[in-house]
Amino acid sequence: MKKKAVVLLSGGIDSTTTLAIAKNQGFEVYAISFRYGQRHYIELDAAKQIAAYSKVKRHLILEIDLKAIGGSALTSNRELPKDRHIEKIPQEIPITYVPGRNIIFLSLALAWAEVLGAYDIFIGANAIDFSGYPDCRPQFLAAYEKMANLGTKTGVEGKKINIHAPLIKSTKSQIIHKGIALGVDYSMTLSCYDPSAEGKACGKCDSCLLRKKGFQEAGIPDPTIYDQEYF
Amino acid sequence: MKKKAVVLLSGGIDSTTTLAIAKNQGFEVYAISFRYGQRHYIELDAAKQIAAYSKVKRHLILEIDLKAIGGSALTSNRELPKDRHIEKIPQEIPITYVPGRNIIFLSLALAWAEVLGAYDIFIGANAIDFSGYPDCRPQFLAAYEKMANLGTKTGVEGKKINIHAPLIKSTKSQIIHKGIALGVDYSMTLSCYDPSAEGKACGKCDSCLLRKKGFQEAGIPDPTIYDQEYF
Repeated sequence: MKKKAVVLLSGGIDSTTTLAIAKNQGFEVYAISFRYGQRHYIELDAAKQIAAYSKVKRHLILEIDLKAIGGSALTSNRELPKDRHIEKIPQEIPITYVPGRNIIFLSLALAWAEVLGAYDIFIGANAIDFSGYPDCRPQFLAAYEKMANLGTKTGVEGKKINIHAPLIKSTKSQIIHKGIALGVDYSMTLSCYDPSAEGKACGKCDSCLLRKKGFQEAGIPDPTIYDQEYF
Repeated sequence: MKKKAVVLLSGGIDSTTTLAIAKNQGFEVYAISFRYGQRHYIELDAAKQIAAYSKVKRHLILEIDLKAIGGSALTSNRELPKDRHIEKIPQEIPITYVPGRNIIFLSLALAWAEVLGAYDIFIGANAIDFSGYPDCRPQFLAAYEKMANLGTKTGVEGKKINIHAPLIKSTKSQIIHKGIALGVDYSMTLSCYDPSAEGKACGKCDSCLLRKKGFQEAGIPDPTIYDQEYF
């Protein structure tokens, strides 16, 4: 029987590539996504499409109202930075930082893993092109794994829980190359913080800028349909 | 200006006493409770009443559907153990264990604390009369605190986040004595896993048994209204 893994799936490049890696490592994949009060639920459509295309065993979309907690431009109507110089992006913690987001998402994935009898959790966290989020750093993930093993039945019973972040040290272009090799169709993915109602990417937010740069550096045509043509 | 603290408030003895301790330590209290798919939402009425009586600054009730994750008798219709011998309770992880519950609750409290600019989080975890839950142990909480400081903006910016569990090593009777000294009205609290529609405690579940034992050992009349009289 295949070992089970829970994969955090947002529908962007990193989580989609991470899902492909988990499958390639032989895991039976249980994907989890969140309806957490983000600006645009259209990213969940991308996640659904990817989950189906990737033939995951199950795709759970959990409701959780982070909007009630507040504190982020990604869960409010605050204006997002647009057309920033790419070099500026990783140097500060941006207003798109959602307090505790990966901690919360990992905790829900962990709970589900425990119910499923899975000991492996995959997250597309990335510390290179990472927009300065503290909860994407390797030292955080190591501390999370340790905590998870102390705070769960699974851990207490001696079965080690593993938090996998296979892209933690990859550049966006390396991630894209890896995904292409594993058959990922990036036209299904959505990275934009501020897409149009039809799901077209804005091409100007930090996430779009990092994505564009990734495809350019990878030397691979960007399959994204941007809202306005920019080339 | 008073320092802010986020207090996890379930409406039971431990969290209510913890709230009183946080107030007594001079914190401005922000209480957080969860509508997580538990069997009985009547415990949220207790939490509301306690929050109002304690004059907390705010009381946030967050929705989060742990039922969708499953895996616990507390979020399902599975039968609960009743009238177990009290000595049997702490020796195993019971079916009332909700996978990842404290991890998830702490993570949401942490996110709110970050938004509020609070560095202190109080939880009524208890490792003595604790029903065998792994996420109530001191070593778990220490690991959680470390993780929290590595995975948040607050932590990265060098302001230490503190997870307080002031009752971690207290017996139920010590907790009750402490609360009485701080003016807690335990008639407002609800511990029962399986209360009646009017909020009367069953008197037979593990939680009721531990509660009764606590009042007996404290030598304080139990103010709980039980569904059937048992004395």
